[in-house]
Amino acid sequence: MDLKAYLKERCTLVDEALDRFLPKADELPFSLHKSMRYSVFAGGKRIRPILMLAACDAVGGDISLAMPAACAMEMIHTYSLIHDDLPAMDDDDFRRGNPTNHKVFGEAIAILAGDALLTEAFILMSRVEPSASLPPEAVLRVIQEISHCAGSHGMVGGQVVDMESEGKAEMDLATVQYIHTHKTGALIKASVKAGAILGGADEARLASLTTYGEAIGLAFQIADDILDIEGTTEEIGKDAGSDEARGKATYPAVMGLAESKKRAVELVDMALESLAGFDHRADPLRDIATYIVKRKS
Amino acid sequence: MDLKAYLKERCTLVDEALDRFLPKADELPFSLHKSMRYSVFAGGKRIRPILMLAACDAVGGDISLAMPAACAMEMIHTYSLIHDDLPAMDDDDFRRGNPTNHKVFGEAIAILAGDALLTEAFILMSRVEPSASLPPEAVLRVIQEISHCAGSHGMVGGQVVDMESEGKAEMDLATVQYIHTHKTGALIKASVKAGAILGGADEARLASLTTYGEAIGLAFQIADDILDIEGTTEEIGKDAGSDEARGKATYPAVMGLAESKKRAVELVDMALESLAGFDHRADPLRDIATYIVKRKS
Repeated sequence: MDLKAYLKERCTLVDEALDRFLPKADELPFSLHKSMRYSVFAGGKRIRPILMLAACDAVGGDISLAMPAACAMEMIHTYSLIHDDLPAMDDDDFRRGNPTNHKVFGEAIAILAGDALLTEAFILMSRVEPSASLPPEAVLRVIQEISHCAGSHGMVGGQVVDMESEGKAEMDLATVQYIHTHKTGALIKASVKAGAILGGADEARLASLTTYGEAIGLAFQIADDILDIEGTTEEIGKDAGSDEARGKATYPAVMGLAESKKRAVELVDMALESLAGFDHRADPLRDIATYIVKRKS
Repeated sequence: MDLKAYLKERCTLVDEALDRFLPKADELPFSLHKSMRYSVFAGGKRIRPILMLAACDAVGGDISLAMPAACAMEMIHTYSLIHDDLPAMDDDDFRRGNPTNHKVFGEAIAILAGDALLTEAFILMSRVEPSASLPPEAVLRVIQEISHCAGSHGMVGGQVVDMESEGKAEMDLATVQYIHTHKTGALIKASVKAGAILGGADEARLASLTTYGEAIGLAFQIADDILDIEGTTEEIGKDAGSDEARGKATYPAVMGLAESKKRAVELVDMALESLAGFDHRADPLRDIATYIVKRKS
């Protein structure tokens, strides 16, 4: 299959749905809705929603039933970026080559736009109409999964440990692993699991896809750490080598570049193995796993 | 009935449940969980959860089924206070006589504690076990109601308009009404509605309780505006007259003190009328409505 064309097509589908689901910029309060839309449409690759739709496909589900949760996931991802960029956090002026939300709308609106995007995600998920093919219990389970992975034992927890370990003289693998599996890995795993649940997966397939999600979640972040060292500023849209300059907890920092690359490949292999019992409908998940360690941005 | 004793007893029940539901301070990341607990247990009166439980009682429901959502509501209320107090927002050093979250834990942790509390609210609500007396559709409807009232068309929207209208030379009643019904009123209305839904109310009773919730939500905020003028700093736990000093949009500012008091009493009357068809089990709701305009803090 042509992965590039597939990703582009799915990205367009997700963008169209996000545009439909998000409050319009001409609804009150204008500044808030403009700010929310500014960051959601700032050039994201929609990896998380695409993974959710692909997991739904892999178990033979109907992706239109997964689209609201897929967009909710992108809103949660976007809120986390807006808050991470704030002066009190990473203090970043640019993201993907564009001024960050607080540089355009001010800190107060940026904080509130993040809050509203996180809330909007739950509005969207809870509005899914249960039906014969989508029982209300499945919708609740998805909300449970996504909220857990986004909260203090998931993404936010990872962000706190990341922040607190920044610049520390000694970094250990356990800490880096905690940060990576929580800060980035949790939402990626939740995306795959939610897609499987919404696609009607049985528990065995859900377990296989959970393994897949965990493996690529960690591989994705290790690949990001490697890109930060090997990529050019133009390719990755931020200063190359910025992790090292900040004393960030990364895989290469604790186990070296070669070992990190090896670990990323092992994780991708593990992800591919977990899909052994799946037919061609899991091909996009297979190709995405391989792509994660090969991408240049 | 003895309202003071009732409120105290319910406050204790809610506090115990919050302690059970919140992540423990000895769970990683410690700083985050300590910060979340610091603000949740900073002396709130638990008005929103108490209203939710009282609405559940009023329709003959089982309050243990409403307790998770009641605590979720308090977490949402608390997150909004933490973010409101941030330097980029109201820049408050004290709340209820205690240092604000960011003064104790720093801005970054305060932002993330707010994020995590908002997320925790949805973790908690989605974990409610559906049963014969609580169908999953009702749980979803409550999540829908609460998220809607907390989001960009509810509380966050009200906060944005409040912030943007601060210090403006001309304030009109429509703007003040928008701010009050959204910033404070929305969560109070959602509390009452959620309690009714979780208590198994039919649509007619739900409609009556919605009217009740809307009326007391607005009355509560008008009473707050009046307290800011007439209360002492000691009573209200913040500087008296601070709204006027900041050029805040308030009822007294647009319609005068006497007219504001009259309006608050009218709203309480409306709330009491909406309960006409309810028996003695709605007495706490009746007494709370009356208390709202008489309280001194």
